[in-house]
Amino acid sequence: MKALSPARTVQELKELRSLTSDEHGAQRVAFTETWARARAWLKDRMADLPVEVHRDEAGNLWATLAGASEKALLIGGHMDSVPNGGWLDGCLNVLAGLEVLRRIHAECGGRPPVTVRLVDWADEEGARFGRSLFGSSAAAGSLNPDEVSGLTDKDGVTLPDVLKAHGIDLDRAPEARGELLHAAAYIELHIEQGPVLENLGLPLGAVIGTVGVERHIVKFTGQAAHSGSTPMDRRRDAFLAAGNMAQEIYAIAARSGGVCTIGSCTTRPGIVTSVVEECVITLDQRHLDAGRLAQMWQEAQDSARRFAQEGNVEVEFSRLWHIEPVPFHPDLIECCDAAIRETCGTGHRLPSGPLHDAAEVARAGVPSVMMFVQSLRGISHNKIEDTRVEHLELAVEALDRLAAKSMGWILRQG
Amino acid sequence: MKALSPARTVQELKELRSLTSDEHGAQRVAFTETWARARAWLKDRMADLPVEVHRDEAGNLWATLAGASEKALLIGGHMDSVPNGGWLDGCLNVLAGLEVLRRIHAECGGRPPVTVRLVDWADEEGARFGRSLFGSSAAAGSLNPDEVSGLTDKDGVTLPDVLKAHGIDLDRAPEARGELLHAAAYIELHIEQGPVLENLGLPLGAVIGTVGVERHIVKFTGQAAHSGSTPMDRRRDAFLAAGNMAQEIYAIAARSGGVCTIGSCTTRPGIVTSVVEECVITLDQRHLDAGRLAQMWQEAQDSARRFAQEGNVEVEFSRLWHIEPVPFHPDLIECCDAAIRETCGTGHRLPSGPLHDAAEVARAGVPSVMMFVQSLRGISHNKIEDTRVEHLELAVEALDRLAAKSMGWILRQG
Repeated sequence: MKALSPARTVQELKELRSLTSDEHGAQRVAFTETWARARAWLKDRMADLPVEVHRDEAGNLWATLAGASEKALLIGGHMDSVPNGGWLDGCLNVLAGLEVLRRIHAECGGRPPVTVRLVDWADEEGARFGRSLFGSSAAAGSLNPDEVSGLTDKDGVTLPDVLKAHGIDLDRAPEARGELLHAAAYIELHIEQGPVLENLGLPLGAVIGTVGVERHIVKFTGQAAHSGSTPMDRRRDAFLAAGNMAQEIYAIAARSGGVCTIGSCTTRPGIVTSVVEECVITLDQRHLDAGRLAQMWQEAQDSARRFAQEGNVEVEFSRLWHIEPVPFHPDLIECCDAAIRETCGTGHRLPSGPLHDAAEVARAGVPSVMMFVQSLRGISHNKIEDTRVEHLELAVEALDRLAAKSMGWILRQG
Repeated sequence: MKALSPARTVQELKELRSLTSDEHGAQRVAFTETWARARAWLKDRMADLPVEVHRDEAGNLWATLAGASEKALLIGGHMDSVPNGGWLDGCLNVLAGLEVLRRIHAECGGRPPVTVRLVDWADEEGARFGRSLFGSSAAAGSLNPDEVSGLTDKDGVTLPDVLKAHGIDLDRAPEARGELLHAAAYIELHIEQGPVLENLGLPLGAVIGTVGVERHIVKFTGQAAHSGSTPMDRRRDAFLAAGNMAQEIYAIAARSGGVCTIGSCTTRPGIVTSVVEECVITLDQRHLDAGRLAQMWQEAQDSARRFAQEGNVEVEFSRLWHIEPVPFHPDLIECCDAAIRETCGTGHRLPSGPLHDAAEVARAGVPSVMMFVQSLRGISHNKIEDTRVEHLELAVEALDRLAAKSMGWILRQG
């Protein structure tokens, strides 16, 4: 009997999809009932393994297969999704990791040479409160409860209240840091969520690091005025200034080689008969080079100020999130590339544009690496997100090989 | 004793404000409890006059001072406001009209040569259901109940249900048409809601007509995609196309001499980590010339299609509202201009950018005119809406003169 069953992972992904999706896609938004149901289902799947399961102070779920050494290989992922999300984002990683745990348990008779821990991070997406990587940043020691205690969802419910409803005390979340005490390596599989591997015709890639991110709210404030009686040259139109930013960010991205996104635009009073008084846009900028990232954000501010001045409106900026570019560990990148080449013949190395929990873990000093599997059409955060079944199965195989190589690497570190 | 007391009108406006406003402004939204309270207060103010008061099938409130002739001069306004509105919009007209009724009654011993009727139109603003001029369009015969029966407010409550709660049967609303049977002239005073009179340093102006309006929803549809992993040249960004429209409408308005407004912009999924898949904007275009209005709307569609094509997104249009330009009656414009010149020395003629009930009445064939009084800073639909007290008093005087001239004009029509 073959211990590793990639087909079982695909089967489990489909089962999870039927349990936690509706006609609009996956609905496993963190700290909702559907997310809690997904986790309960995950715990059921672990019942056959001799793992110790507990939730830490930040709501991350840990399953530990104790080994001869307390040094631990961590395999991470996240069960939470965006609203109307895809069937793979986050949960592929957890379920592939679970399959790897099964193989290691079967092969090592319950006592592997190093400890192996599977972690389901809490609220990777930040879809409800705009703050990504909640659980992993708590474990990494980069979460400051004071900075997020004022966050509210679109219904005005606060993050601390939502956490409390799920048994989590925000003030104690940083205590999750203890979980990384013996962490010796961290590996994470993820769908690429972009078109690079598909364009190259490759199933898998080794991720060399995650890009840095500058994420801000840009608020333009003009003056509400009647749409029929206010001459065009007297208007202080907040939407005009914001609209100018829509094309400007393409020019900024083109100059630097990074990416810029305006993902949300809201208007107030937001009625058909009034000039827009307040227009709020979100701006997300990413680059693998810290200097160029800083330059992109500076150019965005300069442009926004110029458009505001031209339109006689005010502009304010507030930072939502910032992370420096995070390079992964060179030895583990080698392990990952080797695992991929052994699995499908050809390797490729690429940076990650999306943020991942791995960036938080790596920032905390744990040697880390990620592996990407091809996304069809490069689409994610959407119900049409998909990956070929044969590629999913190759990914489970390659992750298993990476786990084995990483365990060997940990032992060699002495 | 002077029969006309403009100071009393100002006093009554302040009393109404204290009764129906909160710290955010006026809250007399049609078909709410506050609106009903404003109307009950209005009826109390009429108790001393020998007027017949009734509500028609569309919820308009009529106070009739019977005259020697059944031919009627109508004086109109509306007690309803937008949410967080100003203290003058709509109710100045009603209370100034009430003061004119008092003067006519005092001067003519209760029996004027023609019948004089004050009307408080129901739901001029359309703030709750997006459909302006409800009551006046019913009286004018241009309201089709089937076209509005599906309207809902933001809580999903339907217009027919709200009307029913206020004793109005939507299907019977068109019967209000009978109210215009003997209407021989219609006059309406309103704050300008724009900066033209203030810029000219004039208190009052005669309105030559209301502009035509094309009001549409423009929906751009692209593809949601991850903000970090999707190269800029692969994006189908609905906000990019919509943002281009923000400046384009200024060019369109400049070419035609009309006004164009994008009042609302919504984005989906509307999250910081995704390219915008769907961006919906509202477009309101106004011009006094029907041909140029049509041209403006054509140019907006052409531009939207071009931006959509350039950005590889789709665009759809749906009409929210349309009204042709409505010229007022030349004789009544002369009467209005003369009344203004007699009151404050200098006249000015201007079109109305905002819609008013007068447009519906004029479309129904009743000779009509409006008079504007200066708005400070051109601001309306906002709690800072204001007009100098001396200008308000001049407006009541000039409206009274216009009423006298209009009655003379009616009698001369034979």
